[in-house]
Amino acid sequence: MALPVETFFLQPGHQGTLQSQVQQMIAHGILSGRFGSGEKLPSTRKLASHLGISRITVTLAYTELVASDYLTARGRSGYYVSANAPVPPSYQPQPASGDAVDWTRAIGQRFSGGHTLSKPQDWARFKYPFIYGQTDPQLFDHTNWRQCALQALGQRDFAALTSDYFDQDDPQLIEFIQRNTLPRRGISANADQILITLGAQNALWLAAQILLTQRRTAAFEDPCYPALRDILTQSRCHLAPVRVDRDGLPPDGIPPDTDVIFSTPSHQCPTTSTMPMPRRQALLDRARELDALIVEDDYEFEMSFLNPPSPALKSMDTDGRVIYVGSFSKSLFPGLRLGYLVGSEPFVREARALRTSVLRHPPGHIQRTAAYFLSMGHYDAQIRKMSAALHTRRNAMQDAIEIHGLDIAGQGAFGGSSYWMRAPQGVDTRAMAQQMQGVGVLIEPGNAFFSGDDQPQGFYRLGYSSIHVDRIHDGIGLIAQHMKH
Amino acid sequence: MALPVETFFLQPGHQGTLQSQVQQMIAHGILSGRFGSGEKLPSTRKLASHLGISRITVTLAYTELVASDYLTARGRSGYYVSANAPVPPSYQPQPASGDAVDWTRAIGQRFSGGHTLSKPQDWARFKYPFIYGQTDPQLFDHTNWRQCALQALGQRDFAALTSDYFDQDDPQLIEFIQRNTLPRRGISANADQILITLGAQNALWLAAQILLTQRRTAAFEDPCYPALRDILTQSRCHLAPVRVDRDGLPPDGIPPDTDVIFSTPSHQCPTTSTMPMPRRQALLDRARELDALIVEDDYEFEMSFLNPPSPALKSMDTDGRVIYVGSFSKSLFPGLRLGYLVGSEPFVREARALRTSVLRHPPGHIQRTAAYFLSMGHYDAQIRKMSAALHTRRNAMQDAIEIHGLDIAGQGAFGGSSYWMRAPQGVDTRAMAQQMQGVGVLIEPGNAFFSGDDQPQGFYRLGYSSIHVDRIHDGIGLIAQHMKH
Repeated sequence: MALPVETFFLQPGHQGTLQSQVQQMIAHGILSGRFGSGEKLPSTRKLASHLGISRITVTLAYTELVASDYLTARGRSGYYVSANAPVPPSYQPQPASGDAVDWTRAIGQRFSGGHTLSKPQDWARFKYPFIYGQTDPQLFDHTNWRQCALQALGQRDFAALTSDYFDQDDPQLIEFIQRNTLPRRGISANADQILITLGAQNALWLAAQILLTQRRTAAFEDPCYPALRDILTQSRCHLAPVRVDRDGLPPDGIPPDTDVIFSTPSHQCPTTSTMPMPRRQALLDRARELDALIVEDDYEFEMSFLNPPSPALKSMDTDGRVIYVGSFSKSLFPGLRLGYLVGSEPFVREARALRTSVLRHPPGHIQRTAAYFLSMGHYDAQIRKMSAALHTRRNAMQDAIEIHGLDIAGQGAFGGSSYWMRAPQGVDTRAMAQQMQGVGVLIEPGNAFFSGDDQPQGFYRLGYSSIHVDRIHDGIGLIAQHMKH
Repeated sequence: MALPVETFFLQPGHQGTLQSQVQQMIAHGILSGRFGSGEKLPSTRKLASHLGISRITVTLAYTELVASDYLTARGRSGYYVSANAPVPPSYQPQPASGDAVDWTRAIGQRFSGGHTLSKPQDWARFKYPFIYGQTDPQLFDHTNWRQCALQALGQRDFAALTSDYFDQDDPQLIEFIQRNTLPRRGISANADQILITLGAQNALWLAAQILLTQRRTAAFEDPCYPALRDILTQSRCHLAPVRVDRDGLPPDGIPPDTDVIFSTPSHQCPTTSTMPMPRRQALLDRARELDALIVEDDYEFEMSFLNPPSPALKSMDTDGRVIYVGSFSKSLFPGLRLGYLVGSEPFVREARALRTSVLRHPPGHIQRTAAYFLSMGHYDAQIRKMSAALHTRRNAMQDAIEIHGLDIAGQGAFGGSSYWMRAPQGVDTRAMAQQMQGVGVLIEPGNAFFSGDDQPQGFYRLGYSSIHVDRIHDGIGLIAQHMKH
């Protein structure tokens, strides 16, 4: 590759001659690894004109660098970084800036130190990946996704790809969600009640910013999705974790001063329990009694292969009290970063304004690609395929867990893609997860899902959305074997 | 399209018979426009099984609906929405929720009411679109972007497309920015000092959240990018607008209690002035004196076709005091939503944590596509093509503005894609912009860029990034004609 002339600058305060300065900038580029062996330098004419110095100065500098074997001259074709030039192991730039800033003082608000779940990025290389929430290449309809992406890259969709939507969304995606996705959850909403978000995480974050202040109280499930707890902690509201039971969040446990309730009625995260109908009604009644709002995270409803899913809590909401959060991360893929919020107009108006300030809008191309994938029916086909595969894996999980005598703490009545497990007394599942990586098994320790300092160490999650069905039996066997030691 | 069985639900509290309930749900679907003419209903067997009712009930309901011409039966192939069924003009769902929520109380923090610039979404249909910041289909290298997107959709990049990166970025994009983009601005940075953001807007927002509190003061340029002012207002810090002069932000004007300075040294937005070298040094000195930080928004540096761009302010920063914001919105397209932050590690660590909480990471696919487009040299070719075209347009603008005697208030010394204009005394450019739409001319009134209640009404911006060169003369002529009235 040719080195662009635009990367060369004279330093205002440099002491030496112009020629030595040119030599030094090139030598430094090579020594720092920024210029690689064989790369072509700008012509002497071009560099001289760019730097505003005489061409002979550049020619002399280049000649010196050829003599010291940093560069080679190839006749009329120009100058190249020499194959004999010193090569550093990899590009390690030396930032020019020292650091005279007292960052402890300069940082006004801190956000680090949360519970970001980290999974090995190379999870696909493990033989028994009982992980959760990543995409199985065997199940994702990559071919049709490519086709839809290609169509969305076409001339006809040029504006959808390139435009600045400001605070708006792709009308095609909104219409599909409105006409096809929400009715599956028993929800009807008009376009002003829907906002596309950068994944469900972004939807939960927006809701928390708008509804919570330092004077308000958020009730949330314990255990819960750790990133939600981070969002609530960062909002500096009062935190009211409510311990879930086998039917999910108990309405009686919600404290009287609660302003906003965060819940996952369809599949409690991480225990996978589904809230029964009477409790849903009781939850709505409790919210009305407290004049509280409910943020419903309805992730993974599509994975209901054992029984049809119950309608969303939002479908029973006659008060406008429920804010619904949907996601395409589980049914399509998490790297897509697409989700949506459904709520009353005054709420969605604020969420839209905040989203615009934070990021304007999710990229047009991915919105349009998703709209095509959904409206051409590929999504439904994909869900059917995933459901069938997850059903098979679930059966294999159930058999293996029984045979090996592991202890199930929670399992989705409708399906889902994970089990919530209890380890025998005394087992610390964090240490266990670490050790099991050595025999190719990935499990998720459960402690991070719990609130407070005294997190139970005895739970773990077994996902089956990414593991091959033929490996389930052996993988569960290895876990059981580990428990016995 | 077949209507998915999953969109049918029995209502728990319904009064009538099961059969009448089935009839009503279908009639309602048709009357509300959700079910379109010719769409196929689920088979009686399927719907009965889904609802958990007898098949004969569904058959009787369908038969009734055929009799009333809502449905037609096509022999063995099933039931369809009849072509004679009543059709509403468009889908207007009636949300089930009323609204018993007092949203004035429920909304804890408001974000609406800002200055989101709104441009006609159909700007491309105007004959003389002197708008700014949208993509010109004539200049964007759509073909190679498609190729790169397609490559990034390939099997080899499956993980980059689908993975949950958690708080990480695409390493290929980071490496390219580090090795090729930043050196063009005289900046060297290691990977821990770079964060990919959802456009420059997102980068500015993250910086404001981390560096500002209610007790801190932000100095910023007046006039400035209105969305930046909204971001600062929402942060509730003390606002210190500083009136710019023809060389941009005057360091002497920055108040002594300033904590963070927001500046656009390369191309002041919107006046387009470029800050001269001595003033840049004075700005850095002033920041050091106040122990303040500088957030440098280096948008549009690539569009320097008249003179080579001066290096970024960040390249002169020996203290780690400058936080650099870069964007691909102008050089690629705004709908891409890709930008980046460069700063010291302690700052980038917080920005990464906050970004993760807000949205996790920009979609993997667009990061990888951009990495390919950049590293294959298409980006450089694109910049050259755009620069050449903008240069031609700029010449045409300059001629037309002189011939028609319009008054230039600011023009980029290095290039850029807009002029900052002054209207004759007494002209309100908001009204003027409105009126000129009637003759096919789009201009941007300047008032929204100014702080305070007493916004000057006499400025306007003329962009030339989207207008055809052949139309510039006539368009400017129409503006001049309007001024005379």
